Amino acid sequence: MSDALELYGANTGNSLRAAIALEEAAIAYTARRLDLRAREHDDPVYLALNPTGKVPTLVDHAYDPAQVINQSNAIIQYADARAPGRLSPATPGPERMQVFDRYFFFVTDVIAPSHAAFFLRQSGLDKAADAMDERVINHMLFAESFLTETFMAGAQFSMADISAFTIITAFRDRLDWKQLPRLSRWYHSVEARPAVQRGLNAFRET
Amino acid sequence: MSDALELYGANTGNSLRAAIALEEAAIAYTARRLDLRAREHDDPVYLALNPTGKVPTLVDHAYDPAQVINQSNAIIQYADARAPGRLSPATPGPERMQVFDRYFFFVTDVIAPSHAAFFLRQSGLDKAADAMDERVINHMLFAESFLTETFMAGAQFSMADISAFTIITAFRDRLDWKQLPRLSRWYHSVEARPAVQRGLNAFRET
Repeated sequence: MSDALELYGANTGNSLRAAIALEEAAIAYTARRLDLRAREHDDPVYLALNPTGKVPTLVDHAYDPAQVINQSNAIIQYADARAPGRLSPATPGPERMQVFDRYFFFVTDVIAPSHAAFFLRQSGLDKAADAMDERVINHMLFAESFLTETFMAGAQFSMADISAFTIITAFRDRLDWKQLPRLSRWYHSVEARPAVQRGLNAFRET
Repeated sequence: MSDALELYGANTGNSLRAAIALEEAAIAYTARRLDLRAREHDDPVYLALNPTGKVPTLVDHAYDPAQVINQSNAIIQYADARAPGRLSPATPGPERMQVFDRYFFFVTDVIAPSHAAFFLRQSGLDKAADAMDERVINHMLFAESFLTETFMAGAQFSMADISAFTIITAFRDRLDWKQLPRLSRWYHSVEARPAVQRGLNAFRET
């Protein structure tokens, strides 16, 4: 662990994806857990780092001024750039672009509508939230067809697996796993990765 | 124009973002317009390229088998990788990550909820669609604070401007431009770019 790199977060999908990316990239960081119920994300010190008050935020003190990254997906790209080959093939070309194609499928077609559903439910629009959750699950099922090799974008673990894993975890109890043999095998193999487990535990309450 | 690279698309935000990215990167391509009303995206030949039947799709015949990219954002990353420096700073470091941070803000916090709103309206869930559109606009207004320099992520044009431009165009008549002096200046400067204009016209009906 190093104070040179701090990841502020909580037990949310976006925070856990960022933590898993740093762990899989073997980049040392210090996890700074925010207590969202105590509204620590509304603290002026945190708002100075992330004006929207959302989690996560990465602060890299190797730069002066410190580099601050607010978007969880930009943190994943940061990890990919710092550790070439671990989250995507380091060599340009079709294998690398396949990773980005699948990664963005999960970012925009699965995780994004799940965030929309969360917002709708918080707004008391339950019927719309249900429709959106159904859309999330329908897109998620498409992942079964991606798994012609071991991982979401080929033979190697990548950021596509990271983006898929936490959102599928959130919907785990609502999938008919008997109909999803490839996704089932994939899920257990990702869940068993030590770096994934460390990431999942990064913001656990102690 | 070169048949070695084909971009299938229509007059949709995702297609136009991909076309603008290729134009700004100065990558030669042939635009293949699909008539969505004639349901050309449901044609088996197109479904073989993009099983979800969505647009756009990029096909790069420089590879055998041809490289196929379905996600508009992966096409933007493809353009960035092929033309370093045009869509993001080529050098690793804070300036490059700032581009990714802002780019992903538009991808996940502005464009994604606008897609959710579109889906909700198509589903007859107008109240939820209105709430989602309001969310889109609220996030969009945040862009005013990004514009401390000429472009969304600093002094240079980048993929952050591409992701912002088409979605702000779609909501143009619903913004109170008098309250948005920086966004107004930025909008006109991006709209005036020849490559942006070429991208906007890539799938125009002839």
